[in-house]
Amino acid sequence: MAILCRPEVAVPEYIVTMEDTLKLAERLHAGKPQLKLAMRLISSTGVRKRHIIQPLEQTLAHPGFETRNKIYEMEAKRRVPPVIERALQHAELSARDIDAIIYVSCTGFMMPAMTAWLVNTMGFRHDTRQIPIAQLGCAAGAAAINRAHDFCTAHPGTNVLIVACEFCSLCYQPPDDDVGSLLSDGLFGDAVGAVVLRGRGGTGIRLERNAAYIIPDTEEWISYVVKETGFHFRLDKRVPGTMKPLAPVLRELAERHGWDVGHLDFYIIHAGGPRILNDLCKYLGVPLESFRYSRATLTEYGNIASVVVLDSISRLFADNQLKDGGKGIIAGFGPGITAEMNVGSWRTKEGQ
Amino acid sequence: MAILCRPEVAVPEYIVTMEDTLKLAERLHAGKPQLKLAMRLISSTGVRKRHIIQPLEQTLAHPGFETRNKIYEMEAKRRVPPVIERALQHAELSARDIDAIIYVSCTGFMMPAMTAWLVNTMGFRHDTRQIPIAQLGCAAGAAAINRAHDFCTAHPGTNVLIVACEFCSLCYQPPDDDVGSLLSDGLFGDAVGAVVLRGRGGTGIRLERNAAYIIPDTEEWISYVVKETGFHFRLDKRVPGTMKPLAPVLRELAERHGWDVGHLDFYIIHAGGPRILNDLCKYLGVPLESFRYSRATLTEYGNIASVVVLDSISRLFADNQLKDGGKGIIAGFGPGITAEMNVGSWRTKEGQ
Repeated sequence: MAILCRPEVAVPEYIVTMEDTLKLAERLHAGKPQLKLAMRLISSTGVRKRHIIQPLEQTLAHPGFETRNKIYEMEAKRRVPPVIERALQHAELSARDIDAIIYVSCTGFMMPAMTAWLVNTMGFRHDTRQIPIAQLGCAAGAAAINRAHDFCTAHPGTNVLIVACEFCSLCYQPPDDDVGSLLSDGLFGDAVGAVVLRGRGGTGIRLERNAAYIIPDTEEWISYVVKETGFHFRLDKRVPGTMKPLAPVLRELAERHGWDVGHLDFYIIHAGGPRILNDLCKYLGVPLESFRYSRATLTEYGNIASVVVLDSISRLFADNQLKDGGKGIIAGFGPGITAEMNVGSWRTKEGQ
Repeated sequence: MAILCRPEVAVPEYIVTMEDTLKLAERLHAGKPQLKLAMRLISSTGVRKRHIIQPLEQTLAHPGFETRNKIYEMEAKRRVPPVIERALQHAELSARDIDAIIYVSCTGFMMPAMTAWLVNTMGFRHDTRQIPIAQLGCAAGAAAINRAHDFCTAHPGTNVLIVACEFCSLCYQPPDDDVGSLLSDGLFGDAVGAVVLRGRGGTGIRLERNAAYIIPDTEEWISYVVKETGFHFRLDKRVPGTMKPLAPVLRELAERHGWDVGHLDFYIIHAGGPRILNDLCKYLGVPLESFRYSRATLTEYGNIASVVVLDSISRLFADNQLKDGGKGIIAGFGPGITAEMNVGSWRTKEGQ
């Protein structure tokens, strides 16, 4: 069975603290009715700092959708390769050992996808399969893990590289002041991540069973409005309440695998926001401490969309507390509202 | 092994003939230096007529990227469901039998992808996997077949629905008059298609081996420039010459399967343009007649992007000339430049 190796995640050099965000909101919404709400929303994100690809003042200016997409492309080409190199090192593989690249990103749009450029510039084989996914948003990190899992199952012994690249700051839309925008302006951060799923050998998380779920009739709750100015993020106020219908879905997946979701050894959960994490703990009946890796991602980097699960997995590796055979679950949530889930076990011995 | 059932394809009601296109070019480029070139390019497309989702005069007007995307969404929601219903009937399955939906489209952008809406409105199970792909362009039809093939291999006995929805007319950009734009204005058409890959049972094309290939250093030859006005298609004049490097790749795939690519019983080839088809025939050493289904798609509908392979397969089914066990190849080409290929055999008896 395929093993998810240690991921590599990098965040950009420009830092925005919660204090910066609060000050900014005071300035931007001064004298406007939404000021109080914005301050409250930002204060309760649980995000201590975020990292962004450009200085704050540049981020606040909207240079046009075309220019933003060019910035996306330039920054992705600059920031993604070093992260891939490190992910390959973690997996003890070279670019030529990779059979498929899954590239997920919802914050810029390129055709061809970045995969073609990566193949041409980083020494991947020209018969590498490309699976670019742009429309699963925050759920795309876990979706990529699941599709990689499927690929390695369908083609035994192959290796899949997953790349997640999210520059959420490029989706900042100055005039938007609905509740969802006010919240997301204080919540999202930028990051890039990469991880290799090895079809044979390797140590890390052995992927064992995957599943997906769409909460009925919620497709408008998390969405983009596509305008001349680019992607405008829309977030319904009911989203933080979605863990109630999702907890039984996670429970059922674990049960089908013969496991009790309330008694696993690790939990990698999309850190969409503090309430998502708190509620899911409650509904699964696990202590808050169980989600410490995801919470650390949220606190340190903000919601970094599809990169969240990779970063939380990276923290699990760094923590290095698990014993061989430890059981766990990975769950990403995003537009749809979609949950992508995988249960697997920690493997410290090669090639199990 | 998984069987690709009979696809369903629908084209819109507004028809543009080659004569219409030539007259239009005469009007739009009157007195301009590019007129002669445009007329020559259009005349040599081999496209007799195309179908588009709006009347021609409306297509020529650019109402803005936001409005175009709204038209995309409205038309997709109107035109896709009946095609899916028929594809399910062809496969003798119901929506609840589907385990994954692969939705490919490069001519409009929605998040969440159409898959979420399809699940909510058409009776698919809420645990259906969603695989939306927006960045593989014309290669996405064959890529979808390959990823469906992988999914059915990874999850034996499951069924995958593939949907391809391309409204190329929504990417018409009035001021663009480079060679690639002049050509594509006379080449592309609109269409929607759907097909089911059955993991068990069914009759049609048994998928046996898939592969992909990126021609080195051609990633800028077919691309989108993303602007405030939406997607601007760029086509390098070297693209029609790409069959020379791709023919050996198709040959090698067939050889790995123990087959001779010059002696197969059916060929489903992306009809990017007449030279693509003519050149590939020549390099594979097969008669022009071998690509009759793809040529018919091009002549009747134009280049309908990711829907081409589904339409050509649909014509293969309608022709009904193959004997059980007939060998064939499916190949889609698109930005990257990417080729997605599959070899398989014709199965007239259930569940082989």
